[in-house]
Amino acid sequence: MRAVDVIRRKRDGGELAETELAAFVRAAATGTDWEPYQLSALLMAIVWRGMTPNETATFTRLMADSGKRLDLSDLPGPKVDKHSTGGVGDKTSLILAPLVAACGAYVPMMSGRGLGHTGGTLDKLESIPGFRVNLSEAEFRAALRATRIGMIGQTDEVAPADKTLYALRDVTGTVECIPLITASILSKKLAEGIDSLVMDVKCGRGAFMKTRDDARNLAEGIVRVARLNGLRCEALVTAMDRPLGRAVGNALEVIESIETLKGDGPADLTELSLALAARMVRLAGLVESEEQARAKVRAALDSGRGLECFRKMVEQQGGDPRVVDDYARLPTAPKTYEIKAERDGFVADLDAETLGLTGMLLGGGRRKASDAIDPAVGITVRAKPGEAVRAGDSVLAVHYRDDSGLSEVLERPRTSYTLTEDRPSDSNVVLEQIS
Amino acid sequence: MRAVDVIRRKRDGGELAETELAAFVRAAATGTDWEPYQLSALLMAIVWRGMTPNETATFTRLMADSGKRLDLSDLPGPKVDKHSTGGVGDKTSLILAPLVAACGAYVPMMSGRGLGHTGGTLDKLESIPGFRVNLSEAEFRAALRATRIGMIGQTDEVAPADKTLYALRDVTGTVECIPLITASILSKKLAEGIDSLVMDVKCGRGAFMKTRDDARNLAEGIVRVARLNGLRCEALVTAMDRPLGRAVGNALEVIESIETLKGDGPADLTELSLALAARMVRLAGLVESEEQARAKVRAALDSGRGLECFRKMVEQQGGDPRVVDDYARLPTAPKTYEIKAERDGFVADLDAETLGLTGMLLGGGRRKASDAIDPAVGITVRAKPGEAVRAGDSVLAVHYRDDSGLSEVLERPRTSYTLTEDRPSDSNVVLEQIS
Repeated sequence: MRAVDVIRRKRDGGELAETELAAFVRAAATGTDWEPYQLSALLMAIVWRGMTPNETATFTRLMADSGKRLDLSDLPGPKVDKHSTGGVGDKTSLILAPLVAACGAYVPMMSGRGLGHTGGTLDKLESIPGFRVNLSEAEFRAALRATRIGMIGQTDEVAPADKTLYALRDVTGTVECIPLITASILSKKLAEGIDSLVMDVKCGRGAFMKTRDDARNLAEGIVRVARLNGLRCEALVTAMDRPLGRAVGNALEVIESIETLKGDGPADLTELSLALAARMVRLAGLVESEEQARAKVRAALDSGRGLECFRKMVEQQGGDPRVVDDYARLPTAPKTYEIKAERDGFVADLDAETLGLTGMLLGGGRRKASDAIDPAVGITVRAKPGEAVRAGDSVLAVHYRDDSGLSEVLERPRTSYTLTEDRPSDSNVVLEQIS
Repeated sequence: MRAVDVIRRKRDGGELAETELAAFVRAAATGTDWEPYQLSALLMAIVWRGMTPNETATFTRLMADSGKRLDLSDLPGPKVDKHSTGGVGDKTSLILAPLVAACGAYVPMMSGRGLGHTGGTLDKLESIPGFRVNLSEAEFRAALRATRIGMIGQTDEVAPADKTLYALRDVTGTVECIPLITASILSKKLAEGIDSLVMDVKCGRGAFMKTRDDARNLAEGIVRVARLNGLRCEALVTAMDRPLGRAVGNALEVIESIETLKGDGPADLTELSLALAARMVRLAGLVESEEQARAKVRAALDSGRGLECFRKMVEQQGGDPRVVDDYARLPTAPKTYEIKAERDGFVADLDAETLGLTGMLLGGGRRKASDAIDPAVGITVRAKPGEAVRAGDSVLAVHYRDDSGLSEVLERPRTSYTLTEDRPSDSNVVLEQIS
């Protein structure tokens, strides 16, 4: 089979056969047979013509099969994960993994790192002194057995075809394509050995999907393709116009996660964490109804069992569990710059992308994947949308290490919020449920 | 400017700016800045989204400017060329170049070689003993001064960006795209230093463009883009369901060309050669009207001045001019296999592509650009469509060198024709004129 014939079939709007998709995936995984310029030409043809659900499902399975797929069937209980398409201040994984584990499911979670204005779970966990995310398979299995939680990064053995195509898409304008996004996400999730997945598809200015329609289409596509591959899957479309919670920045977000597990978290973060955790618990088959799931997750939170699971997870993966009670053990930025309201009013808006980019520019995120990061820096939202401020009150606090060359960065969040005279109406975090 | 941003703009349906096209062309010409997988992604996006006429015109000019552009303004007369999109048995260049030169115009003709089932002018000329197509620029200019004709191949200095993109398109499914075809053809023609161009866009089973609509669209696109670049241009859409004339094969086609210049050529070949030559003569401004042009070209043929120009051209470029009077000086295949009619009837059809492929398989053409060819082999059409045969009469003669492994090839043309009881109606060679 010649690469050019496969490309031409897709270019002309055809559905690729399994043998054709297999040739493409094998070439991407091994770097043989096809030239990179043929891979990218097919990627652009897929952006153009799309893929049917069956085609995407086959492509996803072949991508997962291009590397190692974990078999966790020896674990005596349901295996469930949550995956988010990326946002600002989104630390729900740190909260819901312990809650779901406390409810009795295993949570083998393979996460990513932050890139651009969005954060990553691995970076947040690594701000805890000693915390290791590069577990061997044996260590990962041991962690799951001991705590029902395993938090790791994607290894080189997982979906190597996706690794090649992901890098290629980034530089060839072929990122924005629902079948390609779906296959990239789900191939890695299939490799985790889970049987249930809850997707959190972010929607809004601070998200990859800017419109509700795009987010819904992606969510529906992922749910359909996951099921075609035998994975139970539901999705929430959630708002990402504003940052989630009050903390943006790795160590700051760990503190907020712990606060939330103690019952003192911001309303939006608590609401979304509980909603996602409840979906996971129900999808995992631990309860019958959504109502039971919410009650079970709420009890795990209120009883402190979720917090205990968090503490155990930290300890199991080499981290210092004392951070739970002593936040001073986490990295702290030496300086704080307060951005103050110029007049009385209600905070009406808060742009997630601006705050995410500010966090990156402070050194807390990455422009490119190889950048090093500073876990201590970030932003605290002192006044969230809907909250009243008086002239001179602080709206945002920027936590930074060194102000050389940062004067513009420190001022940047000033454009991220608006003030109004009347109290703005509340907005929901969970926008749609797709099941 | 980042490659990915240019790709994304075209992907989203935008018109590329001159600076963006310049970055693309420079990258293709020099092999720097962009990766080949970015070139191919943009090519596929262009296949998808197309290009406006202005965009194509700019792209074409930048491609021409990526290499050497000849300045022939010192030649005291109009410079005119003809370009065909490729067919089977199409030897019109060998006939019309001498006719147009005899009428007083310069014909600097940069031609290609045969590939696949289609033949190439350079291969035909090289079947004349001693004929050299690899002229230096000084030799090319000297030939034009001496004979008004120069027949050469594309040098490495001409449109290097096109060379890269042409090779890439072939293996990435991005050949079939009118703006890309237009830019590829015209960038090389702009580099020739001509002021007028007649396009022969072939249409039908034996051509690259299979339908009349596709051929017309290409012809109109080329004419528009040529004019936007200051090149006078008209086009004919001509039939390529059947081979042109009776000869398919390099030396066989040289003989038929000479016969035509002697006034003894097949009707379809003579008609098309005169039609194209007349357009060239009128477009070059040597006469006012189409009628005058036809008369002038006809006189050049009837008087033998065209034949004399052919003879001089052969001699000027190192070939043996005695071939004009002694065809035995051309390479001849030692063996002939006759394909005979199985019953009485009229030849109703003759598939150009089958005969072109047979010629290639006999060794007269190339599967890939680096193949060597045998100038002597080929096919003679003994009975053309519309002609009557009796059972046992030869319809086709296959001229070959060696029958080892050729038994299937020799039989292959048997499927290329059909016989009918009633005489089929005549069909036109020239289908449409675009001016």
